[in-house]
Amino acid sequence: MEPQTLFWLVPAASLIALLFAAIFFFNMKKADEGTDRMKEIAGYVREGAMAYLKQQYKVVAIFFAIIAVVFGVMAYFGLQNNIVPVAFLTGGIFSGLAGFIGMKTATYASGRVAEACRDEHDGLNRGLKLAFRSGAVLGLTVVGFGLLDISAWYLILDNTGLVQGEGVSKLVEITTIMLTFGMGASLQALFARVGGGIYTKAADVGADLVGKTEFHFNEDDPRNPATIADNVGDNVGDVAGMGADLYESYAGSILASAALGAAAVASAHGTPEQGLQMVMAPMIIGAVGAILSVLGIFIVRTKQGATQSQLMAALNRGINFSGVLIALAAAGVLYLLGIENWLGLWGSIVIGLVVGILIGKVTEYYTSFEYKPVKFIAENATTGPATVIISGIGVGMISTCWPVIFIVLGTIGAYLCAAGGLEFSSANLSMGLYGIGIAAVGMLSTLGLTLATDAYGPISDNAGGNAEMSGLGESVRSRTDALDALGNTTAATGKGFAIGSAALTALALLASYIEELKIAAGRLGDADITLSLFSGPIGKGTEVATWDIATFMSKFEVTLMNPKVLLGIFIGAMLSFLFCGLTMNAVGRAAKRMVEEVRSQLSDKDVLEGRKKADYARCVGISTQGAQREMIVPSLIAVVVPILTGLFMGVAGVFGLLAGGLAGGFVLAVFMANSGGAWDNAKKFIETGDAAFCGKHTPIHDASVVGDTVGDPFKDTSGPSLNILIKLMSMVSIVTAGLNIVFSLL
Amino acid sequence: MEPQTLFWLVPAASLIALLFAAIFFFNMKKADEGTDRMKEIAGYVREGAMAYLKQQYKVVAIFFAIIAVVFGVMAYFGLQNNIVPVAFLTGGIFSGLAGFIGMKTATYASGRVAEACRDEHDGLNRGLKLAFRSGAVLGLTVVGFGLLDISAWYLILDNTGLVQGEGVSKLVEITTIMLTFGMGASLQALFARVGGGIYTKAADVGADLVGKTEFHFNEDDPRNPATIADNVGDNVGDVAGMGADLYESYAGSILASAALGAAAVASAHGTPEQGLQMVMAPMIIGAVGAILSVLGIFIVRTKQGATQSQLMAALNRGINFSGVLIALAAAGVLYLLGIENWLGLWGSIVIGLVVGILIGKVTEYYTSFEYKPVKFIAENATTGPATVIISGIGVGMISTCWPVIFIVLGTIGAYLCAAGGLEFSSANLSMGLYGIGIAAVGMLSTLGLTLATDAYGPISDNAGGNAEMSGLGESVRSRTDALDALGNTTAATGKGFAIGSAALTALALLASYIEELKIAAGRLGDADITLSLFSGPIGKGTEVATWDIATFMSKFEVTLMNPKVLLGIFIGAMLSFLFCGLTMNAVGRAAKRMVEEVRSQLSDKDVLEGRKKADYARCVGISTQGAQREMIVPSLIAVVVPILTGLFMGVAGVFGLLAGGLAGGFVLAVFMANSGGAWDNAKKFIETGDAAFCGKHTPIHDASVVGDTVGDPFKDTSGPSLNILIKLMSMVSIVTAGLNIVFSLL
Repeated sequence: MEPQTLFWLVPAASLIALLFAAIFFFNMKKADEGTDRMKEIAGYVREGAMAYLKQQYKVVAIFFAIIAVVFGVMAYFGLQNNIVPVAFLTGGIFSGLAGFIGMKTATYASGRVAEACRDEHDGLNRGLKLAFRSGAVLGLTVVGFGLLDISAWYLILDNTGLVQGEGVSKLVEITTIMLTFGMGASLQALFARVGGGIYTKAADVGADLVGKTEFHFNEDDPRNPATIADNVGDNVGDVAGMGADLYESYAGSILASAALGAAAVASAHGTPEQGLQMVMAPMIIGAVGAILSVLGIFIVRTKQGATQSQLMAALNRGINFSGVLIALAAAGVLYLLGIENWLGLWGSIVIGLVVGILIGKVTEYYTSFEYKPVKFIAENATTGPATVIISGIGVGMISTCWPVIFIVLGTIGAYLCAAGGLEFSSANLSMGLYGIGIAAVGMLSTLGLTLATDAYGPISDNAGGNAEMSGLGESVRSRTDALDALGNTTAATGKGFAIGSAALTALALLASYIEELKIAAGRLGDADITLSLFSGPIGKGTEVATWDIATFMSKFEVTLMNPKVLLGIFIGAMLSFLFCGLTMNAVGRAAKRMVEEVRSQLSDKDVLEGRKKADYARCVGISTQGAQREMIVPSLIAVVVPILTGLFMGVAGVFGLLAGGLAGGFVLAVFMANSGGAWDNAKKFIETGDAAFCGKHTPIHDASVVGDTVGDPFKDTSGPSLNILIKLMSMVSIVTAGLNIVFSLL
Repeated sequence: MEPQTLFWLVPAASLIALLFAAIFFFNMKKADEGTDRMKEIAGYVREGAMAYLKQQYKVVAIFFAIIAVVFGVMAYFGLQNNIVPVAFLTGGIFSGLAGFIGMKTATYASGRVAEACRDEHDGLNRGLKLAFRSGAVLGLTVVGFGLLDISAWYLILDNTGLVQGEGVSKLVEITTIMLTFGMGASLQALFARVGGGIYTKAADVGADLVGKTEFHFNEDDPRNPATIADNVGDNVGDVAGMGADLYESYAGSILASAALGAAAVASAHGTPEQGLQMVMAPMIIGAVGAILSVLGIFIVRTKQGATQSQLMAALNRGINFSGVLIALAAAGVLYLLGIENWLGLWGSIVIGLVVGILIGKVTEYYTSFEYKPVKFIAENATTGPATVIISGIGVGMISTCWPVIFIVLGTIGAYLCAAGGLEFSSANLSMGLYGIGIAAVGMLSTLGLTLATDAYGPISDNAGGNAEMSGLGESVRSRTDALDALGNTTAATGKGFAIGSAALTALALLASYIEELKIAAGRLGDADITLSLFSGPIGKGTEVATWDIATFMSKFEVTLMNPKVLLGIFIGAMLSFLFCGLTMNAVGRAAKRMVEEVRSQLSDKDVLEGRKKADYARCVGISTQGAQREMIVPSLIAVVVPILTGLFMGVAGVFGLLAGGLAGGFVLAVFMANSGGAWDNAKKFIETGDAAFCGKHTPIHDASVVGDTVGDPFKDTSGPSLNILIKLMSMVSIVTAGLNIVFSLL
């Protein structure tokens, strides 16, 4: 079939996804909001969340405005295509919008889920369905906006005079320009993840340290002044942050694959028809995935009136079923597109899907209390908090082994399948890299569904908070707790996809960087203003566009014995640590202010004994201010360091930086996420009372709470932010490639 | 002057260093051992330490025997020079011997230092001198054996028929063979650091958790059954382990520089005379450094009867004076050798010295309670142990920034000085790399003295233990505490040198790997047995020896877009984490057994109240067994993974592995060492009572003790072991380069 015909699936899928998102949203709004007290609590959380988001978008808007102006100036001097500043903005706006809608939905839904759980007959099931459908709003919005932005830009760039050229070279230019809107999405995601992560953990740590540890309150006790901030945090961190993160991976993987596909055809001197096939493939697979995700959501729906474990199985069946369907559909798409090596590319896609699932399984093994590692940490609680920390760090560090092995094997597999051979060589490099990119697309093709299960978690969590604060009683709370537990299990899979896709996407972006450099060099080669600066491998008349990747790398001396490359790797690895250190301390500082506020409020006996209402707004304010203030420096680092590295160490240094940041950041992210998750569940294991040493409010339990508290910023602030750091640094390098060329010539 | 004439300085310096080591040792033995009780305590520690070392050497001997046989087989098949198995063994033996002598000295000295401190008039000064001179035995033994091994092998290889060839190519062959004895030293060092680190921290954590936290004993209370094991641990970890670590850096940096020097001259088609100059320079600078270190030790001696702060200043003056002298002497040596760019190389050496000092200063800033970061952690103790851990990890991660910047700037500076230009290019790469190697030599040239101050620390610490357990009273203990505090301050500098030299040495080793590959390829090219396997860049008649580094890298496709390289970087970064995780958990497990033993012994009221002697030997046994059992897996990983990577991903993959391991390991090591040090001193700050929230045995102090306990394996087990992991992986790759060539051809 004609690629152009199949392409219309992309905008169509986008509209279908957005349509169902709207349907789920309005259906949810129709549900009963419960008692006045419940409405009041939900209102506090919603107000806090919206106030935060408003504040955050203000800061982000300033950043975006400055950067757009800089890009405009760069475009004026021929360092960039004129469309880049606009594309950059749309990426940021859609990403922010998806987060906003997802969070709005979540804050409307959680009270209603609590109300649904009050139904004595069918409460569990009604609650699950409502929470899951509300989570699906985020999933479908992310996917829908992603495909909308991609298809709209493709149509604009293809059908207007904005891009010159013909055939394959036009495709190369279009796809590399489109890649730059990924930077807008990345930057928005970084703010959402870092800001949201700091917000949520400052509130959580503050609420736990005083409320739980000092006063032995239960979770979500309404007397605890930080409890509303804690619930707001779940929304801004786990809903808006996670959504923006995966929006970025999703769009980034499709755009990077499209760019690599065009480049691969160009370097093989293929036909425009082949170029179109390769460029369309990732977009159409994304579209098919979006449609099948909607189907998957309805498959989950069919299981009404079931017990919780059956619902869990139904949920899994929905995910697995969609996964299998997508895998089959992908084969069909590739075949219909008429791609020669369609079977090989299909192999890459399936590998991507499988690697995502495997990383999720490993995550589950290391963070679920069903298995040895978490039990080992729990046992270490018998000798106090220090051994809990030591063993949790040990487990987290060891847990990095398998995800790296899976990524390595998956990358090799995806490469070789796409390249259609059993060897790596410079001849099949372009196709192999395309395979890596399309594996990431495969991994993320079920995103509409997996993100629904992710967002479902904080919604259920907040429903529990609402139930507790509204005094709905034990039986309702036990139902919301059951929903929450279900969410914790599915969260492991979600994390596997988030980090796995970040690694594959960043690998693909590394290759896109070369294409962008080539185009930038070509653009500069025509511009008189910069020609006088030329020296080094690129001069007037150099046919950079014809260099294959191997030639390019050797011309720019991007070998491992070039000190610039090696030192770039050092800096990249260090940046991951610096970034985590800054965010950890940010949480520490904000949490400390929160602790002081909560202590001061609880020193009033009337508040402590529930006769006087706690001042929730002050705690919300502390988290908001803390997050705003603290997110700026780490974000600036991610933007500025790649540019400075380019200035001082040229293209070779930037490559080193990106590779070091990617490898170091990936491993560090897995370590932090898994240590954090393992501590959390070690505490929960002790609370279950399944082993001799278990039980609540014992010194052993207290020791495990220390682990959980330390784990909070590990798993919800620093760890996940690294996913974005990895991608953003690549995106910044790609978008400022023109500067790199100029720098390397100075 | 003739290089051959100046060369005799090397064996001469070796003998001088060893002679003074002997003098200091026998003078120390003449000192009074004190009361019977003191002799008894010292005897326990000595026995425990020797029993451990005996046990460790047994395990190590088995490893060495197996590897030597493997190397013998490889040599038989032409994959390696016949001398390698023997050279490998001598490296291991001398390294082990230096550790043994250093530890023996330390265990004899500590009781005598305590006795010296009993002198009411001059006790502090006498104690300091005795402890410092005893520490110098380790420093001078390491330096002496290092130079002895190097000069003996050089003389043997140069003057017998073992190495074929003439002129520069003979030098290349000699120096690359000599490099392989570094692997023996590395492997020995790894066992010493990992085993010693696990031993000391299992004992320390076990002693603290029960003795200090549960029973509120003081440090070194004789009723605590783990207290002897704790004192033994200081010796096996901080003396024998540190000695073996730096022996390895010292010998490795000299050998790598010599090999790079020969290679640089070969690639520039220089004369044999120039080759000799370059090969001799690092050895002779090492020799001059050794002699001046002896002088430095005596300079410290002149300040008798001084107060403690004056002694500290005298100690620093000694170190600074030697440093300046060595810098001056190095200029003289390079000039006398007749090296053309002597001034540039001198610049590289000075840069190395300065970088070591700067990293030490940064370490001090982040780990001393004089400065903000540690105070910040201490303040976080007011909100409990969780915030102590969060802030300590945050500070440690942030602290990686400056050391990386210094290493990057230092490397660039050393490269450009040696290359004599302002640009990196493939033409000046060989000389630049030599500059990096010789910067490491410069950094370590004062090792005789800096290691003396390092070993001085545990000796004073043990003296304090002896004083406490022998009941010598407050005033004696306060003097030994003062000595101990002095040691803590100098330790920061020592750590800077250990990690900084590891990074520079490993960078130099990376380049040596290429030389070894070239020689191995040449050797294999002549051997019929393997010729049938040849394909890839090397075939029969390929003149590999003539390839310069850039050609080599492009032939083997060691560029950053080769997936093998990228995935190697991933694996390398992951290995550092895996290695740390394994050693952290090893400490956790051994400490847990120790806690159980101590608790069980103290459940006997007679032991608890001091009427019945605690069973120290059982605790010593637990640490010994734990260390032996647990050190094997991490050590195997370091040896096996580079070989497997070579098998599956060829030379390109190994390069990636080494670069990723180097960058990731360096950053992780700095993080862990600094977090650990900062927690330790945050606790000490709280004990000083300098701030409002300070004081012993408060909940705030307890929170800081949790940080200190977590920090123990960070700073004394996992962190320092990474230094060696980094170097050992390079060494293994170098020594098994022949296998890599065969693998890459399969």
